[in-house]
Amino acid sequence: MRNLFLGASAACLAAFASSAALADEGMWTYDNFPAAQVKATYGVTLDKAWLDHVQANAVRLSTGCSASVVSAQGLVLTNHHCVSDCAQDLSTATSDHLKTGYVIANREEERTCPGMQAEVLLSIKDVTDTVKSAASGKAGGEFVKARNAAIADIERTNCAGKEAVQTCQVVNLYQDGQYKLYTFRKFSDVRLVFAPELATAFFGGDPDNFNFPRYDLDMSFVRLYENGKPVATPGHLVWNPAPPKDGELTIVAGNPGTTNRLLTADQLAFLRDVSFPMTLTQLAELRGRLIEFGKRGPEQQRVASHELFGIENSYKVYVGQLQALSGPGFLDGKRQADAELKAKVAADPKLAAATGDPWAKIAAVQTERAGLYAPYVLLEGRAGFFSPLYGYAVELVRAAQERAKPNTERLPEYADARLPLLEKEITDAKPVDKDLNQLQIEFWLLKVREVLTADAPQTKLLLGKDSPETIAARLAGSTLADPAVRKALWDGGLPAIQASKDPLIQYVLATDGAARAARKAYEERVTGPSGQAAQKIAAARFAVYGDKVYPDATFSPRLSYGKVAGWTYRGQTVPYATTFKGLWERATGQDPFALAPRWEAARGKLSDDTVFDFVTTNDITGGNSGSPVLNAKGEVIGAAFDGNIHSLGGAFAYDGSINRTVVASTAAATEAFVKVYGQQALVDELLGKPFKKGGR
Amino acid sequence: MRNLFLGASAACLAAFASSAALADEGMWTYDNFPAAQVKATYGVTLDKAWLDHVQANAVRLSTGCSASVVSAQGLVLTNHHCVSDCAQDLSTATSDHLKTGYVIANREEERTCPGMQAEVLLSIKDVTDTVKSAASGKAGGEFVKARNAAIADIERTNCAGKEAVQTCQVVNLYQDGQYKLYTFRKFSDVRLVFAPELATAFFGGDPDNFNFPRYDLDMSFVRLYENGKPVATPGHLVWNPAPPKDGELTIVAGNPGTTNRLLTADQLAFLRDVSFPMTLTQLAELRGRLIEFGKRGPEQQRVASHELFGIENSYKVYVGQLQALSGPGFLDGKRQADAELKAKVAADPKLAAATGDPWAKIAAVQTERAGLYAPYVLLEGRAGFFSPLYGYAVELVRAAQERAKPNTERLPEYADARLPLLEKEITDAKPVDKDLNQLQIEFWLLKVREVLTADAPQTKLLLGKDSPETIAARLAGSTLADPAVRKALWDGGLPAIQASKDPLIQYVLATDGAARAARKAYEERVTGPSGQAAQKIAAARFAVYGDKVYPDATFSPRLSYGKVAGWTYRGQTVPYATTFKGLWERATGQDPFALAPRWEAARGKLSDDTVFDFVTTNDITGGNSGSPVLNAKGEVIGAAFDGNIHSLGGAFAYDGSINRTVVASTAAATEAFVKVYGQQALVDELLGKPFKKGGR
Repeated sequence: MRNLFLGASAACLAAFASSAALADEGMWTYDNFPAAQVKATYGVTLDKAWLDHVQANAVRLSTGCSASVVSAQGLVLTNHHCVSDCAQDLSTATSDHLKTGYVIANREEERTCPGMQAEVLLSIKDVTDTVKSAASGKAGGEFVKARNAAIADIERTNCAGKEAVQTCQVVNLYQDGQYKLYTFRKFSDVRLVFAPELATAFFGGDPDNFNFPRYDLDMSFVRLYENGKPVATPGHLVWNPAPPKDGELTIVAGNPGTTNRLLTADQLAFLRDVSFPMTLTQLAELRGRLIEFGKRGPEQQRVASHELFGIENSYKVYVGQLQALSGPGFLDGKRQADAELKAKVAADPKLAAATGDPWAKIAAVQTERAGLYAPYVLLEGRAGFFSPLYGYAVELVRAAQERAKPNTERLPEYADARLPLLEKEITDAKPVDKDLNQLQIEFWLLKVREVLTADAPQTKLLLGKDSPETIAARLAGSTLADPAVRKALWDGGLPAIQASKDPLIQYVLATDGAARAARKAYEERVTGPSGQAAQKIAAARFAVYGDKVYPDATFSPRLSYGKVAGWTYRGQTVPYATTFKGLWERATGQDPFALAPRWEAARGKLSDDTVFDFVTTNDITGGNSGSPVLNAKGEVIGAAFDGNIHSLGGAFAYDGSINRTVVASTAAATEAFVKVYGQQALVDELLGKPFKKGGR
Repeated sequence: MRNLFLGASAACLAAFASSAALADEGMWTYDNFPAAQVKATYGVTLDKAWLDHVQANAVRLSTGCSASVVSAQGLVLTNHHCVSDCAQDLSTATSDHLKTGYVIANREEERTCPGMQAEVLLSIKDVTDTVKSAASGKAGGEFVKARNAAIADIERTNCAGKEAVQTCQVVNLYQDGQYKLYTFRKFSDVRLVFAPELATAFFGGDPDNFNFPRYDLDMSFVRLYENGKPVATPGHLVWNPAPPKDGELTIVAGNPGTTNRLLTADQLAFLRDVSFPMTLTQLAELRGRLIEFGKRGPEQQRVASHELFGIENSYKVYVGQLQALSGPGFLDGKRQADAELKAKVAADPKLAAATGDPWAKIAAVQTERAGLYAPYVLLEGRAGFFSPLYGYAVELVRAAQERAKPNTERLPEYADARLPLLEKEITDAKPVDKDLNQLQIEFWLLKVREVLTADAPQTKLLLGKDSPETIAARLAGSTLADPAVRKALWDGGLPAIQASKDPLIQYVLATDGAARAARKAYEERVTGPSGQAAQKIAAARFAVYGDKVYPDATFSPRLSYGKVAGWTYRGQTVPYATTFKGLWERATGQDPFALAPRWEAARGKLSDDTVFDFVTTNDITGGNSGSPVLNAKGEVIGAAFDGNIHSLGGAFAYDGSINRTVVASTAAATEAFVKVYGQQALVDELLGKPFKKGGR
């Protein structure tokens, strides 16, 4: 599952040797796509018109996923796991769409996904000089503040008057090396059209996650609406139901979330030694609590299992990344690559003078970071440990406080350009499970006390003489589960917040200072200095390796090229595709290898040889979930939904010999939509047949 | 808590510089105690009589703890957390001795602790030549087999005819560098005499565990019985109720469990990169499950919280050890120390020829180990994940199979010398919670599937077409909860086992082959070759550094010398002792900072200034729990029950500037026994006053 929170195995050390990208490596921006390299490697010309056509139909979902427009009536292809929040939110104790799927007969039954916004990239403009000059000469917290202010101003100014239909975002590339203004067409009414059962989309469950061979129909559809009607999208991508061909060129257009390929060896060592162990153990413990919580009863099972899905996915990603980082020779390889760049810089006196020693600065920052990291993560980064109620409270309190300030002086996530989506996310109605929120808040406070210790001033502020258990029980009684309450607090601003008797609002008002302080310290002493040093390294890298370098992933639109291909690891060859036949063979009847009833009923009706899932060499990561996989003609032949286990080290380095993208094929989908789900209208729409009233 | 499963922080790199022990460092055997060094450092003479007196009263508990004889009537001092299993086993849903303590009025109420055996060291004999010559010229699995056979034979022969009162154990020292036969006087009827409430013994709970200042009365007493009567122990240690003096010499006599100070840097890197991350995440997840399991109801809370205590303690130990291993420069320092020894060896041609390059061999083994470790741990080391029911089944099945073989051909834990204790452990009556066992077995099978993958042959053998959940539910219905069933199966041997209809026995019979195979592969390709290489390194170390080297901890009797002393870390000085006053100040009324009712009632009755807990520089580790802390006269002034957080890196290196042993004082105990618990008779016995019939 490549939802946000993602990142390939004992990655090839060659990938470090120079920062120039290897064949098939890279998550390229639309304005720096290596078309010549694709032509040279695959003999295929991807011209500007080709790229523009893809850009106009590649979708970013605000929920951390990718997607694409695949019909003339605003139909959007993504993954099932990208709409599983929506399917859960639209479910009740008696109607469980994750279990039964979201399979409807008429367009009128399409329902809005709470909090979801779809975005299509319109333009890219370089604003590096503006941002850099604003922050020039500043250091630490002042650097961060000035940079953020410049970005807030650019985003507000460039979307002024068009906020209802556009969103502006300054994208940080090459670790503060470049800043580009990305302007998006946005769609705030995104409705669920079709989702298979979780048992179908995620057949094999956690054990098969990040593995291949695979047998998942991890595909779903949503539709873009405006003014209550489907948006007309005549220039959509073409759905091609033909199976993939071994070796054919594939382009993935999506929004990879985060990679750390440009970090120095010292930064990677910090991840290995401090960050990942803490994150992994906390995810593991929360996982245990959720599993056991689900055993309280069927409704708790329903509620917990969806939450669990996200936790287990993240957990497996971090396990894979940690394995990569601590693999034999990995960090040594990275250190060599750092040393190589340093040596090249040192060989050029002018460049050496301009660069200084940013590597040493970053190394020094890691020592400070060790003391600042835990408070930052526990009080700020993971405050409330995924409790939606806690999240609402923090956002309401902070939005009220920040909106009272000028745009350029706010925390960046409360800048004017970000408010419309934030308001939607806070005020859209969603079911809230009180007991689950209590568990999450209790867990959070327990971890604060454990990691920061009972004697830390922050712990004393958060707990007083109370225990995590009693505080969580009290806070879970919050009225914020009611969207009307949230709306009133949002609209009422700071006076309403200050007058609120809600225990959670009062708690956040009383304690949020500690979180803000932890963040400020981290930004001033870690993020700021690291960012400035990274700018120097980025500039040196451009000077040494030229512009054929791609930036780390930042959940912004990117293109990856590659091909359909299996792989060989430790003597074992994995073919490039699976077929329906394999699904019947793998099914045991027991969760997570149990078939959904519709599929049991369809046994014998589907062609054994149809390609189900396949793998490609595309270089993707979390956030790419739902990305269209395109052939040379720009036609959709699948939806990327995962990577193999070797892809997880891709967070730090790409190894084309084993790193694979896992794709659900249009061939399988087209057949299953009709034979399993009876969705002829959906297939007709995908194949461009005219829409008939009363149908789909 | 320094129960077995233990091991000091960013340890001083100097500790590596040469393997000669630094001041206060070392877990010394009775036959190699550095009395001259103690005399030189502390001006105190500890002669043979002194050492013999201590040896004769130092106790090893089969449950993984240490203790000491402190009265003429067989009274034994240990930690509360060393008898908490016993207190739990003697509890029921309506009588919870962990909650209320085990506080009795008459000796007649002293009750036998199931499965517990106490051992006192009688003699040490060097059998290195015998073992080495038996294994000479053999490698891998053959080496392990020959070594184990020689050991089994020595143990059987030397205790022949005295099995009822003695136990013989060949102790492996210096990583297969030396083998010594330890003969112990054993006591199989050990009865619980006194235990405070968990809230008193473990005040501050997990948050304060491995921290100091501390306010725990982690002390309990058991009594040695034979033939239904207390054992006469006239030569016992003297209980001195005076408080410790800052800077005074302290000797700890106990059984440190495991340290890894003689491992090479490559072996330590394996722990950091592979072993610890897997162990930590699994403990964390199980912890989460147990916490949530405890929320099902009060009885589940009672049952789970005891199990949780052990898991949280181990978890914290591994966190500390991992922090030490991944601390800045730690492994580099170890690599330097390895290189230094190698260089000294290379400088001596004869030594170089005899030594070869065992470091390179060990490095090569680590690569193999990466693939063998997970199956070994999951199928063998942690099979059943602490489920007592699963443990009974494996031991019954294997004991039946192994007892059918000659003594020297068995798995070592089923050699004749080991059978009496094993039988006791299996057949003693203990309460078994079915639901908790189901949770543990389910968790185990889930981890097998997750880590080894669903497609591994071992997973297929263990699961078939079933799920972990359904198998665990079936196995938890085992009849092995009944001690009579276990006794019958033990006595019935292989025919009874093979005829058993018990689902768990049948399951183990069907699947245990995979566990045995994983163990065999690990021993042949990891343990065996590593042990042989370690012998070479040990020999080289003796040749270079002489005999003033202590062996790694192996849960065998050891002595540590040190002094009462606080410490300073990052500018903060921690005083050497706490007082009762601090307890009243730290209590919040909420768990785990809530006082037990007896203590609430005693507020104002205790002297504020009495020393409660104190710290010393003694070098101890897990297994040392319950060790007597002795002054220069050999009098007991406390019971060691923990280390500070910096002590956890002690698994790999000792840093005398910050590594501290945490001790509950006899001063506090003597006062509290009378004023809080009304145990005047216990105090009279401790102070050597004559025993009065009807009293204690």
